[in-house]
Amino acid sequence: MTAVAQRATPAALEELAALMGERFSTGEAVREQHSHDESWHEPEAPQAVIFPETVEEVSEIVTICARHGTPVIPFGTGTSLEGQVNAPAGGVCIDLRDMNKILEVHAEDLDCVIQPGVTRKALNEYLRDQGLFFPIDPGADASLGGMTATRASGTNAVRYGTMRDNVLALKVVRGDGEIITTGTRAKKSSAGYDLTHLFVGAEGTLGIISELTIRLRGIPETIAAAACSFETVRGACQATILAIQTGIPVARIELLNAEQVRACNSYSKLSLPETPLLLLEFHGSEAEVAEQSKNFAEIAKECGGGDFSWTTKPEDRTKLWQARHDAYWSVKALRPGAGVVATDVCVPISRLADCVTETEEDLKRLRLLSPIVGHVGDGNFHCSLICDVDDKDEMARGEEFMHRLVQRAQAMDGTCTGEHGIGQGKQKYLEAELGPEAIDAMRALKKALDPQNIFNPGKIVPMK
Amino acid sequence: MTAVAQRATPAALEELAALMGERFSTGEAVREQHSHDESWHEPEAPQAVIFPETVEEVSEIVTICARHGTPVIPFGTGTSLEGQVNAPAGGVCIDLRDMNKILEVHAEDLDCVIQPGVTRKALNEYLRDQGLFFPIDPGADASLGGMTATRASGTNAVRYGTMRDNVLALKVVRGDGEIITTGTRAKKSSAGYDLTHLFVGAEGTLGIISELTIRLRGIPETIAAAACSFETVRGACQATILAIQTGIPVARIELLNAEQVRACNSYSKLSLPETPLLLLEFHGSEAEVAEQSKNFAEIAKECGGGDFSWTTKPEDRTKLWQARHDAYWSVKALRPGAGVVATDVCVPISRLADCVTETEEDLKRLRLLSPIVGHVGDGNFHCSLICDVDDKDEMARGEEFMHRLVQRAQAMDGTCTGEHGIGQGKQKYLEAELGPEAIDAMRALKKALDPQNIFNPGKIVPMK
Repeated sequence: MTAVAQRATPAALEELAALMGERFSTGEAVREQHSHDESWHEPEAPQAVIFPETVEEVSEIVTICARHGTPVIPFGTGTSLEGQVNAPAGGVCIDLRDMNKILEVHAEDLDCVIQPGVTRKALNEYLRDQGLFFPIDPGADASLGGMTATRASGTNAVRYGTMRDNVLALKVVRGDGEIITTGTRAKKSSAGYDLTHLFVGAEGTLGIISELTIRLRGIPETIAAAACSFETVRGACQATILAIQTGIPVARIELLNAEQVRACNSYSKLSLPETPLLLLEFHGSEAEVAEQSKNFAEIAKECGGGDFSWTTKPEDRTKLWQARHDAYWSVKALRPGAGVVATDVCVPISRLADCVTETEEDLKRLRLLSPIVGHVGDGNFHCSLICDVDDKDEMARGEEFMHRLVQRAQAMDGTCTGEHGIGQGKQKYLEAELGPEAIDAMRALKKALDPQNIFNPGKIVPMK
Repeated sequence: MTAVAQRATPAALEELAALMGERFSTGEAVREQHSHDESWHEPEAPQAVIFPETVEEVSEIVTICARHGTPVIPFGTGTSLEGQVNAPAGGVCIDLRDMNKILEVHAEDLDCVIQPGVTRKALNEYLRDQGLFFPIDPGADASLGGMTATRASGTNAVRYGTMRDNVLALKVVRGDGEIITTGTRAKKSSAGYDLTHLFVGAEGTLGIISELTIRLRGIPETIAAAACSFETVRGACQATILAIQTGIPVARIELLNAEQVRACNSYSKLSLPETPLLLLEFHGSEAEVAEQSKNFAEIAKECGGGDFSWTTKPEDRTKLWQARHDAYWSVKALRPGAGVVATDVCVPISRLADCVTETEEDLKRLRLLSPIVGHVGDGNFHCSLICDVDDKDEMARGEEFMHRLVQRAQAMDGTCTGEHGIGQGKQKYLEAELGPEAIDAMRALKKALDPQNIFNPGKIVPMK
């Protein structure tokens, strides 16, 4: 087996073109569009892009690719952040955008069956009238297939879990094109190996996710939002720890460091105190939400939090969360024209204050600007590093910063990525985190399910 | 590769004996004790039983076994229900009872690191003073290693999830004795393949779970219990569906069918109405629990529920749950001397009433007695089939019943087991549930991680 699969031969491309007709493209613009995600990684274009509409078509495509040893790269909305959709070995990109049907909604069971190209917002739009929603919100309007493949999470994960917790079963096209079913609609099962969770987070390297059964929730009767400023990051983290320990089921609890609040004030014309801020959301019945807010207010006060006000009015909630939603744009606006490199790590929550504080000190020492936002209930935080790509010295300092950030998180019993995934960007950190034995096991799994290394080669674990 | 690994050679046993000294036994009584779990499966004794105390010792044992191709069967408390600890190919049993240390408790992070032999009750005893508990309760005082290996769940799963949702990371001894680390203490991660969840539920067939990092919860301020009788199983199921849809975070919601209530009344000297019964538990602050109870009472009334009373007094709660805890013994007492075969299936909750009702009809038709209890919030239910093992005709009808039960659940988009696992007993149903492609994938994974087929051979997926 070689490190990466071989490029598609003309014969392979011809066969795929004959199968897919107009839904097969080798056009420059289409290939360029599928050569990159939203990260800083150098684009690498596939040789062709294919737009299937059914599981069976995906199976036929994979069958042809397997026969020719052609790389296959699945593509959702291209909003990943670690180079997951790049095509370093060429091959064909399977864009799943036209597999966007919601096949079944089971309101009583709180689940639905969908095609992988359905996006988060389209799904929630569709479900709203039935009083249901899908809770995972990674920010981007990503496809559910892509969110599954990268084990996405986001602001709601503290209450509703990540994609890992919300996928019940998958249909995956793998190997020589066979379609495998990984589970049923039963809410739990102990029937055999957990194939579902092997494919969740595998970034398309083990097969193509072609149908999903996912869990839904009832839209809460009442949603309340609140903001609370703290003197220190440690105070904000301590309040979060206590809230979770005492079982307050916060739906969102987001940390913005002082730098990020400054950026938001400037961009969104707000006048928040420029100190660490917690943004919160509570879900439940009216009485439950009132109780949660009251309990959190007491904790916040204990931990040096400032004024705590909460609101259930939709327009006020929207205003309060606007700062958080615009965080990326507010960072972009700090230095127009410069690049913003997004990266994430995750640590046990007891170490979060240390990790954020040391990271802030490192930024100062390296003369870098990177506001920080955190899904603080999960110990997960993001740096949005502003870098001028033409400034070699700044780029070098930026790389040093990111390297040290990962090492810091790992030294604190944490992980090199809480939700962005490994892709191309974080392969070098995986062995330090889990040891060579785990990497060997991952490689053995990859070889077992994809002996030709055709599925998204060059991602997660480099093959020998 | 053969269907089962070969029996241990005298040379292998000698080497293991030399390594372990008095903690290696080939005594008849010890081997008999490790030849079976609590199921109806015929006992099959290992050739020797070993009692390691550290991960390193497990690694040394596996290294020797791998060199000799000797089967290795992990053993927790022997409370599994599908023949998971039997030794059909001989080999050595690794009893993990002496690996019972709680290594670290991280109260702020709500996690702890433990050895696999720690039992559920010992852990909760240890944690109580810190206001923490581990929520998964499969009934038996099982070991956490065994609960992980069988993906156990139980009465609390409706709120707190199963073992799948509560294991953060594992140390597993596999292959040639190497120790692999599958994750960190970070609450979430998207760093590579989900090795953790591949080993959760693998029933020891991929390696020996030798250390666990698991999630904890704060002991709720208030716990309230309630009971509510319904005229029909359908009414009880409908109330459960509505409670979950509206987001009432019930901690336990258990169904007892009329037959089971009759058995409990007789055994526990109660006078519950002999119709389907829901037993409930609510966790939270005082106000939250009051709100949950009030909301559930309204739903129960809508669904034809009878009197609904709830209590937060520990002694009253205990009394109310006694009937549920004694369910197994109450069934045993129905026909003293006869055997009780426990089996479980799980279906989408919308199909639960149909599945239970059709199962009751089938029991009547086949002239069999089997009270039913259900973790109704998960769509998971158990039959406790009373059978005289010497009555061939009754045993044949019992087998027909169990076969039809699984087929019924699978036809309703369900699974052949919600929490007991596959072991030896349910292998024949796995392919019907997931298809041959999934079985092929499972077999490929088994071959990749255990090429010699030494880890608990003959369980989950028969090897060719």
